[in-house]
Amino acid sequence: MKIVLDAMGGDCAPEETVKGAILGAGELGISVVLVGPGRRIGEELKRYPEAGRLDIEVVEATEVVTAGEEPRKALQKKDSSMRRGFELVKAGYGDAFVSAGNTGALLMMAVLIFGRIEGVERPAMASVMPTLDGRGYLYMDLGANLDTSPWNLLQFGLMGSIYAQKLMGRERPQVALLNVGSEKGKGDRRAKEAFELFAAQVNQDWVFYGNIEGRDVFRGPADVVVCDGFAGNLVLKAMEGTAEAIFSLIKEGVSGSLRSTLGGWLLRPALKGVLARLDYREYGGATFLGVNGICVKCHGSSNARAIFNGLRVAGDAVRQKVLNHIKENIGTIADTSATGDGLED
Amino acid sequence: MKIVLDAMGGDCAPEETVKGAILGAGELGISVVLVGPGRRIGEELKRYPEAGRLDIEVVEATEVVTAGEEPRKALQKKDSSMRRGFELVKAGYGDAFVSAGNTGALLMMAVLIFGRIEGVERPAMASVMPTLDGRGYLYMDLGANLDTSPWNLLQFGLMGSIYAQKLMGRERPQVALLNVGSEKGKGDRRAKEAFELFAAQVNQDWVFYGNIEGRDVFRGPADVVVCDGFAGNLVLKAMEGTAEAIFSLIKEGVSGSLRSTLGGWLLRPALKGVLARLDYREYGGATFLGVNGICVKCHGSSNARAIFNGLRVAGDAVRQKVLNHIKENIGTIADTSATGDGLED
Repeated sequence: MKIVLDAMGGDCAPEETVKGAILGAGELGISVVLVGPGRRIGEELKRYPEAGRLDIEVVEATEVVTAGEEPRKALQKKDSSMRRGFELVKAGYGDAFVSAGNTGALLMMAVLIFGRIEGVERPAMASVMPTLDGRGYLYMDLGANLDTSPWNLLQFGLMGSIYAQKLMGRERPQVALLNVGSEKGKGDRRAKEAFELFAAQVNQDWVFYGNIEGRDVFRGPADVVVCDGFAGNLVLKAMEGTAEAIFSLIKEGVSGSLRSTLGGWLLRPALKGVLARLDYREYGGATFLGVNGICVKCHGSSNARAIFNGLRVAGDAVRQKVLNHIKENIGTIADTSATGDGLED
Repeated sequence: MKIVLDAMGGDCAPEETVKGAILGAGELGISVVLVGPGRRIGEELKRYPEAGRLDIEVVEATEVVTAGEEPRKALQKKDSSMRRGFELVKAGYGDAFVSAGNTGALLMMAVLIFGRIEGVERPAMASVMPTLDGRGYLYMDLGANLDTSPWNLLQFGLMGSIYAQKLMGRERPQVALLNVGSEKGKGDRRAKEAFELFAAQVNQDWVFYGNIEGRDVFRGPADVVVCDGFAGNLVLKAMEGTAEAIFSLIKEGVSGSLRSTLGGWLLRPALKGVLARLDYREYGGATFLGVNGICVKCHGSSNARAIFNGLRVAGDAVRQKVLNHIKENIGTIADTSATGDGLED
């Protein structure tokens, strides 16, 4: 198995991406293709004596897509490490692509270079999120799609259920809709119509759990939580922002008095444990579902461990033939909504 | 000034509501009208020797709206403390109504009994939320409205700016749209159209800040953050859920070892300080803006201090003539969107 890695993607590239490749090739038994400026990557590789023994190769790409760059402009850089990476996988030279680069650019290239899987109206972005019991759940859409229809949401549910089954070991995944109330009939027009569609689906490989509220997902029984990308993105960032704010306030509180400073020092391992359990970098990044190729997007601030996890998830997705399962199953659900095209009428 | 208080609203009623009335009448220099079963309220009042000296009266209401009750059913209870409370204010016997009861029922009664302010298409629910610097911002809509139009959002912005100016002391409030990106052109159809509408408004008493992301609100310069009620409610609950999850994990971590237990004990005052700063009960509950009467909704789990804060905010709203300001200003903004009715076409 050969995973293509964008050596220049993310805030800590290429130092952490190269280190991630070393970890991945060493521990996962995979080949890693590093794409980017060969000389720069070579310098980094030299820092690891084991590099020569590992199955790592370098493919030259002279340009770099930057973090804030407009996706359209990024696409025009024909020799960027990101674009070359997608093209290598598209050409069959690698089995999957991993990048910690610009999300919008990645999404656009995934759709334009990989193309959509036949029957999938909109690809979505999914990520495993932490729960209190450590099981985690797949959350989607993280913001790849705005203005989605109920039918789009049902397709997300199907694709998510395949991910949960194949990559998270959930036998018959419980798929829930994120909503403002748990009862049937709650929500905006889209959420209500989506509930009807989900309730009417007949695919026996997954179960519609119903609506789930934001507070319950942390302890909830859902394996997949589906939401439109606008609210989904707002919720994701609100969770990140809340966690950041709390830890920043704790830090401030710790330095407030001698007592607190000592307490903070003693509690540090426990607090670090809390952070680790909430750290979604541990979960292997976000996956684009619905495009005709495997692409895993690691967080922009990814360290080597996060890149390693991205490589691991990409490898699992290849091994578990996630693409094939989506292709085979996308036809098992049908748009039974009145208009047949949800809200777009 | 006379504030009507639903003695039976909330999980800790009537114990905490009566205690809140004692605090309010004592410290705020207001009259409080407690609505509910007179005998039960009388028993509670007996526990406070100062009650006799305070300006507190009791108005009988025999029924109680329960927490999970359907709003429509709640409305049918003609003699509920909630319904009687609204009616007392409507009849001019009190200046504002405060309740920690069933949100959906409160909202329905506020609209049906108070009625909407002329020109307001949809009333919204707003609450002051904490920021890291302690300033706070007004967040709306908390979920009173699903399927809102861009024009609804602009009206929310105007009403919110009046609240921020009159009750939070923000001279020329910065009003922002909660969005998935900070640049112009980001967001779903509604968010994009709302941006145009906000940018075109000419009311000089407030400033359109532009889009703001979920992560930035905690440190952001916005005084008012506007969002549709569906996403707004999801985000609010996600923030609550995240905070709960983190503190629950910290608690678990504290009990993990002797070191952590000692650390947790030492850090306890600091952690309590963090919780207090994040506790929106301190901020006086949520206010319904756009209805023709003042109604403050305290959190369902309100203690006496939260009820006190609700009474304080209601009193401030009366004193600052918030209703009049909304009535006078609602006509200063116009629906300049192409269709004139936003997304509802």
